Amino acid sequence: MRFLENISDNEIQAGFNRFIREASLKYLSSVSVDTVIFRFHESQLQVLIFKFGDTKYSILPGGYIERKEDLDEAAHRILKERTGLNDIFLEQFYTAGKFNRSGDPRLKRILRRSGVILKSDNWFHQRFISVCYYALVGGEQVISATEPHNFHYSWCDIQSVHDLLYDHNQIIEKALEKLQYDIIQKLVGSNLLNETFTMKELQVLYEAIFQKKFLRTNFQRKMLNLGILVRLEKKRTGEPHKSPYLYKFRSGKIK
Amino acid sequence: MRFLENISDNEIQAGFNRFIREASLKYLSSVSVDTVIFRFHESQLQVLIFKFGDTKYSILPGGYIERKEDLDEAAHRILKERTGLNDIFLEQFYTAGKFNRSGDPRLKRILRRSGVILKSDNWFHQRFISVCYYALVGGEQVISATEPHNFHYSWCDIQSVHDLLYDHNQIIEKALEKLQYDIIQKLVGSNLLNETFTMKELQVLYEAIFQKKFLRTNFQRKMLNLGILVRLEKKRTGEPHKSPYLYKFRSGKIK
Repeated sequence: MRFLENISDNEIQAGFNRFIREASLKYLSSVSVDTVIFRFHESQLQVLIFKFGDTKYSILPGGYIERKEDLDEAAHRILKERTGLNDIFLEQFYTAGKFNRSGDPRLKRILRRSGVILKSDNWFHQRFISVCYYALVGGEQVISATEPHNFHYSWCDIQSVHDLLYDHNQIIEKALEKLQYDIIQKLVGSNLLNETFTMKELQVLYEAIFQKKFLRTNFQRKMLNLGILVRLEKKRTGEPHKSPYLYKFRSGKIK
Repeated sequence: MRFLENISDNEIQAGFNRFIREASLKYLSSVSVDTVIFRFHESQLQVLIFKFGDTKYSILPGGYIERKEDLDEAAHRILKERTGLNDIFLEQFYTAGKFNRSGDPRLKRILRRSGVILKSDNWFHQRFISVCYYALVGGEQVISATEPHNFHYSWCDIQSVHDLLYDHNQIIEKALEKLQYDIIQKLVGSNLLNETFTMKELQVLYEAIFQKKFLRTNFQRKMLNLGILVRLEKKRTGEPHKSPYLYKFRSGKIK
């Protein structure tokens, strides 16, 4: 929906027609890509969403697959277009294919309000099966999101994500399940934190991902027993007796 | 490729044209489904493959998604069509989307040898992104595979699968990784065994899936410690002092 500009109705309709003409030639039919982009910020697990104009509706960043592009390449390109970031953790986790997933009536209302009237057999309204990827943006990484026309990006706390269009709320749930698995199996936590961190910060990250509290002593013991952390010097806090140790992951970031 | 019959060249071409005409109306473009169907038989982990005519080439059972059918429904229908089985464990695990995955030149040669000549822009030769599912067929379940024309099904030991067309060998590798995960996390082993089994049989299953040997005493202790097994009476072997215990899974089959 990069085609919707805050301009006159005729221009919107013309721009939209142009997009559709190009899209149906440029991209595969029936298949799209959606991405769930996580970051860990101020003790919260957040996802990147794009909110439409002054409505309360948002969508996940997504796009289409060029006719001669590998599926994974398409996902990387879309991530780059939406966040400016290259070379970050990105992994396929699920393909959404309910018959009725594309026909969200709220979207049709929003389009109509923006002056876009489409026939029901328009390319844009076809049924799309969506291959879903999740990405991890590190604590020190800054995104420069490109905002599709009339969409505005924001980071939303995972427990406050409501009213996404299509089946995007379910897609986020699936992504969170996969993240819960990968943080144990693949230690992808290193991709969400700064290079060094305190045990407390690590625990808060795990609590945000599993959406529950852990006992401090148990958590610390388990983490240290895994042998995945390297202990560094103490953090400078100005209060010498309360300074916690800093840690980093032995393995570094996961690709 | 259900359209290829062992009949005259003209009939093959006519049947093929009919299939293509119907398929392009009936099914979504650009997306297909492939299934990796596992069973555990005579101490071997096996997959179901369809071998083409008298060639050495095989494919995984697969199909297309009807225009008004959920993706999961399509996978269940295809599984039912190929094996006669309903209501068995079936789960999506991966979507294959390399640009060049559909253009296997070996397939074109096989088709040409069967008298089928297709233009390169034919529906059948379009690029397909394939959503992959794996299924588990239990020890007591009998399949009644429907064989697409000129294909013959067989169960193939996992380590002996060679020369599959397309990227189907890689798809089997991905399926095996997922099975290794799910047998630990979801205890899907119950779906591959008879209802009751000896500890030895369970160990052989795990060894077939992980493709390595386990120490008998370690394996037994770990399995019993998990608390997932129920011990039943001893197996009748005719040799009373060597009769092993039978077990079953506490949870039964996984849906």
